[in-house]
Amino acid sequence: MRTFRNDYSEGAAPAILRALVETNAEQTPGYTEDSHCAHARELIREAVGRDDVAVEFCVGGTSANIVGVTGMLHDWEGVICTPDAHIATHETGAVAACGRTVLPTADEDGFLSPEEAERVWARQTSCGRHMTRPALVYISDTTELGGVWSRSAFDAVCDWARARGLGVFVDGARLGSALTSDGNDLSLEHVAARASAFTLGGTKNGMLFGEAMVIADPRLRHAFPYLVKERGGLIAKGRLVGVQYEAALSGGLYWKLAAHANECACALRDGLVGLGYKPYLAGSSNQQFFVFTNDMAQRLERAVGCETWCDLDRGHKVVRFVCSWATTHGDVDELLAYVGSLS
Amino acid sequence: MRTFRNDYSEGAAPAILRALVETNAEQTPGYTEDSHCAHARELIREAVGRDDVAVEFCVGGTSANIVGVTGMLHDWEGVICTPDAHIATHETGAVAACGRTVLPTADEDGFLSPEEAERVWARQTSCGRHMTRPALVYISDTTELGGVWSRSAFDAVCDWARARGLGVFVDGARLGSALTSDGNDLSLEHVAARASAFTLGGTKNGMLFGEAMVIADPRLRHAFPYLVKERGGLIAKGRLVGVQYEAALSGGLYWKLAAHANECACALRDGLVGLGYKPYLAGSSNQQFFVFTNDMAQRLERAVGCETWCDLDRGHKVVRFVCSWATTHGDVDELLAYVGSLS
Amino acid sequence: MRTFRNDYSEGAAPAILRALVETNAEQTPGYTEDSHCAHARELIREAVGRDDVAVEFCVGGTSANIVGVTGMLHDWEGVICTPDAHIATHETGAVAACGRTVLPTADEDGFLSPEEAERVWARQTSCGRHMTRPALVYISDTTELGGVWSRSAFDAVCDWARARGLGVFVDGARLGSALTSDGNDLSLEHVAARASAFTLGGTKNGMLFGEAMVIADPRLRHAFPYLVKERGGLIAKGRLVGVQYEAALSGGLYWKLAAHANECACALRDGLVGLGYKPYLAGSSNQQFFVFTNDMAQRLERAVGCETWCDLDRGHKVVRFVCSWATTHGDVDELLAYVGSLS
Amino acid sequence: MRTFRNDYSEGAAPAILRALVETNAEQTPGYTEDSHCAHARELIREAVGRDDVAVEFCVGGTSANIVGVTGMLHDWEGVICTPDAHIATHETGAVAACGRTVLPTADEDGFLSPEEAERVWARQTSCGRHMTRPALVYISDTTELGGVWSRSAFDAVCDWARARGLGVFVDGARLGSALTSDGNDLSLEHVAARASAFTLGGTKNGMLFGEAMVIADPRLRHAFPYLVKERGGLIAKGRLVGVQYEAALSGGLYWKLAAHANECACALRDGLVGLGYKPYLAGSSNQQFFVFTNDMAQRLERAVGCETWCDLDRGHKVVRFVCSWATTHGDVDELLAYVGSLS
Repeated sequence: MRTFRNDYSEGAAPAILRALVETNAEQTPGYTEDSHCAHARELIREAVGRDDVAVEFCVGGTSANIVGVTGMLHDWEGVICTPDAHIATHETGAVAACGRTVLPTADEDGFLSPEEAERVWARQTSCGRHMTRPALVYISDTTELGGVWSRSAFDAVCDWARARGLGVFVDGARLGSALTSDGNDLSLEHVAARASAFTLGGTKNGMLFGEAMVIADPRLRHAFPYLVKERGGLIAKGRLVGVQYEAALSGGLYWKLAAHANECACALRDGLVGLGYKPYLAGSSNQQFFVFTNDMAQRLERAVGCETWCDLDRGHKVVRFVCSWATTHGDVDELLAYVGSLS
Repeated sequence: MRTFRNDYSEGAAPAILRALVETNAEQTPGYTEDSHCAHARELIREAVGRDDVAVEFCVGGTSANIVGVTGMLHDWEGVICTPDAHIATHETGAVAACGRTVLPTADEDGFLSPEEAERVWARQTSCGRHMTRPALVYISDTTELGGVWSRSAFDAVCDWARARGLGVFVDGARLGSALTSDGNDLSLEHVAARASAFTLGGTKNGMLFGEAMVIADPRLRHAFPYLVKERGGLIAKGRLVGVQYEAALSGGLYWKLAAHANECACALRDGLVGLGYKPYLAGSSNQQFFVFTNDMAQRLERAVGCETWCDLDRGHKVVRFVCSWATTHGDVDELLAYVGSLS
Repeated sequence: MRTFRNDYSEGAAPAILRALVETNAEQTPGYTEDSHCAHARELIREAVGRDDVAVEFCVGGTSANIVGVTGMLHDWEGVICTPDAHIATHETGAVAACGRTVLPTADEDGFLSPEEAERVWARQTSCGRHMTRPALVYISDTTELGGVWSRSAFDAVCDWARARGLGVFVDGARLGSALTSDGNDLSLEHVAARASAFTLGGTKNGMLFGEAMVIADPRLRHAFPYLVKERGGLIAKGRLVGVQYEAALSGGLYWKLAAHANECACALRDGLVGLGYKPYLAGSSNQQFFVFTNDMAQRLERAVGCETWCDLDRGHKVVRFVCSWATTHGDVDELLAYVGSLS
Repeated sequence: MRTFRNDYSEGAAPAILRALVETNAEQTPGYTEDSHCAHARELIREAVGRDDVAVEFCVGGTSANIVGVTGMLHDWEGVICTPDAHIATHETGAVAACGRTVLPTADEDGFLSPEEAERVWARQTSCGRHMTRPALVYISDTTELGGVWSRSAFDAVCDWARARGLGVFVDGARLGSALTSDGNDLSLEHVAARASAFTLGGTKNGMLFGEAMVIADPRLRHAFPYLVKERGGLIAKGRLVGVQYEAALSGGLYWKLAAHANECACALRDGLVGLGYKPYLAGSSNQQFFVFTNDMAQRLERAVGCETWCDLDRGHKVVRFVCSWATTHGDVDELLAYVGSLS
């Protein structure tokens, strides 16, 4: 049985891999200064509907977060995010390693709320220079729990940040999944209109690797290219990222891949609900979280490699299933049949 | 005409690309925890002739240098290197960005000498805690000027470092070229026996990207995996690096690719000498540096994209030609014919 | 009326100031390499009952915490502490600015519990190299809320840390107050026997400035002198710290000053309780926290400069009163009379 | 015989010490938020002739350099300075420890030249984002070799920096000595008019400790207070620095102390020249450098603690003599008599 462990279990989507193969013998300048990267930048500018954004290519998600987050903070400043944010938990303190402070709220559902952001802001500015000053908000779409930001919730955070003078960084490692999910009302154009910078992720949407960093705030355009290099996020054969984004964005493949992963995930969700299982959080993105008994969780982990996300209570666990561009409806059916046989 | 600009102008060597294509649909765990990486690690251990080294995979050269250099230094310590070392010049201050100090010698030929290392050591330890304390020596093989370390010169630096209690890091981005060059008497086993850690580079020897970090000093084994992740050098689809090293090291392809690039470079060198041009430094690796008049240098840069390395005097420039696995003898002949036609 | 705002409102205790005046014309080597510092180090070694500890002098508390905490952590490691710890709240992200991560527990009373430390440890080590690894425990005695560590609670934390292989750093900015407080059963010798390093604070116990860092773990002896200099904590006229510790530790003045501050604070506490006010937490150190209505809190802040620590509920605030070596019983009586007049 | 080792061998000038004693019992707010600091700031604004500069107080020179230098640099930027600059040599890599790069020129006399600055600038900007970008010039007045900046040389550096868009930081640890030295034509007003920020040093001009940071560039006003705290340079009893500057700047004591040290140093210089010794560099500040045979250098070091600065050749050394506010003409005569007796 295929694994539902994550959306980076496989290589690249066939058309993207083909583009790499077809351009393999070309000789190009290094470090993303080639024509494929130029074209990919153009396609991204078209997709976000703005001529005036800059685009940098980073090799991976942690690398992109390091640039995006620390590049918007002075040494004494910090970033407000949810406690489960990737930068707060699963990046080995990468932000602190660059000298900046992560300031988690108490939001529990993966969505940063203006109320919690304001609470952290008020606390951190209550004592002048003695406390880290918040200067940035970090959110991810989808969230760590697979949640999709609504336009109104996103605007509320952006409004709050603007009122307080903070920047907004959107970690879009799974932005493709978010923007193509059922019920989503946020657009790429709108993200670009309101965020200071954001990523449009490649790794988790059919590329071998690579994250496109879209830089909307003109003050960051000079900084980010230096930071990508200094922090080790720039590869010599930089055209590889450009070639992949070119292939992905030409003809809308990027969005089709994401939509397909969502579809499989929703079929999986509906099937599990049909079998009587309870979703941990509602959602239509490519990650689905369900509650199982400890025993079932263990069996599933062994069978399809899905991760136990956390303990819900003594007898139950939250299990994560992730679909990707490579998942098939047959894979989902096979999984559902397996679960059904255990029930 | 093909460019001789560098050894990362093309994609991957065909067999390596093929391995990526063939394994593309496989599902594997992420972050280099898959069986391809395990196998690649095994092949590297065999190649270095030691069971007791650890191997980490970094995404690129700057990333590997960040881990290798800063991972061997405490906050108040520094690394001794030549003034033209990559970490001292072309990595945007990446070592300083991680809080450590680069301590250049005055060596002018790209080779670190024990005499200069001792001079820097003596100066930096003359004033106790008031000065950055040297704790590591950084060398690269080949050097920035295409030089190949002899075993005796390498041993002299290692002996000096051991006597002073410093570690040794070898940046092996072009170690393949070095070890397969005419007259080389250094072996991979010997590097592994004496260096604290070193890289066996992939990017510049036929892979899309990726550097293998060989960790010989057991005290570094715990540290480096954390550092690779924290500094953004670990990609989600980590198996891609493993697959490439597997393909490269099976059947000796890695060494064949490097030897081929050297061969082309030596043919180019001999041809240019035959045409009456003067090498800047003697050498048999895949980088060749020649002296041209300013006018010739400019024409060559336009024609074959070779880089002007530096000004030699008011009328002459040093020009760098780089061959790769993808260069053909036909390419070299074409270049020589072109140069001949200009002379 | 005198202020009860804090224990650094005044200059130095008379005998300490006198020592500075009397030695003012002496010529000594700089940077704590003089005979006064040597003598002070000797006195500290005697006081802690160990010949084998090293002693460094830092200029202030944040400076000492930077050295003590970051000097015990590798780049990818973090320090476990309570959420109200000085390093977590009031040092402008100084630990993160040096590239390390602060890992707060959920302890609410200022005392770090082994249970909470274990919870943080378990979480942070559940995902290998993807998470900041805890390597140090930070506690302060007295705590931020004026609490005094019992020997058994201190041992429990140290036992836990030893079992997990973590170091222990004790911020002793107010260790004098802690060790001389009523009911204290912890000794300086015991702290030195169990902590990796700790400070014996000067600034808040009658000196103009200065913190003595006692380094018990021999592995830190080489590092800390460099770090104190590199982080800016070493002053040129270093003998000033030595002269002050000499004066303070000769004849037990240090302990008398601390005991006096405690006595005044306890008299204040008893008086307020007598007037019917409620302590926020019980304690016998030089800081006392009481609950007042918002209106009373505001009046008191205006009259005696005491700080509002936090809001208890909508109608009440927690107010902090701090006594120092310079507080007199007359000052306390005057304050109590004033409070009585308002009641 | 008194030592001529440095200008921080003694405590504070009597009037400054007296001010500390007289204000010792006062209760003031901490962290330089008291009325003495406010007054001292006012006196400094008057002395520099500008109402619109901000003033922060740092505890020492390294601390001030950390704030001044790293506070003007983004993560990927560097500071151009002479190779003997304090930040490049004697601060244990403090600038790198904060993630920024020191870019030394080849100037050999302690004065940064626009030509050398331009050379470093040209090299560092020749390769775009691959190299640390210079963004600041650091000079010190007096220089490490006791040199005093002329107005024209200072303006030349400032003009160059302005033309290239770099900031200017003046390390004024000995600015008092510089501005009161014979032949000086630079004024405090002029420094304040052209530098982005500079220090007016206390430690080496009669205070126990403390450096006043004058912030002329309005963009730095928000940043520096946070940085002083975050980097550990802010002491709790901050009023101590204010009290000292108040005493020093009232009635021109600060300038008298510096002028006196210069006078003694010039008498010493003239005496040594009279005895036939050769100055290493001409100068009228409080540091004098002379050439002696190795034997004489050793005897002098033993007798008056003066430092051997460097080896001139196999048989000769450069020896540094430093005078302070505490040096007397009698001390100078005694030293000269001693040297004469050895000759």
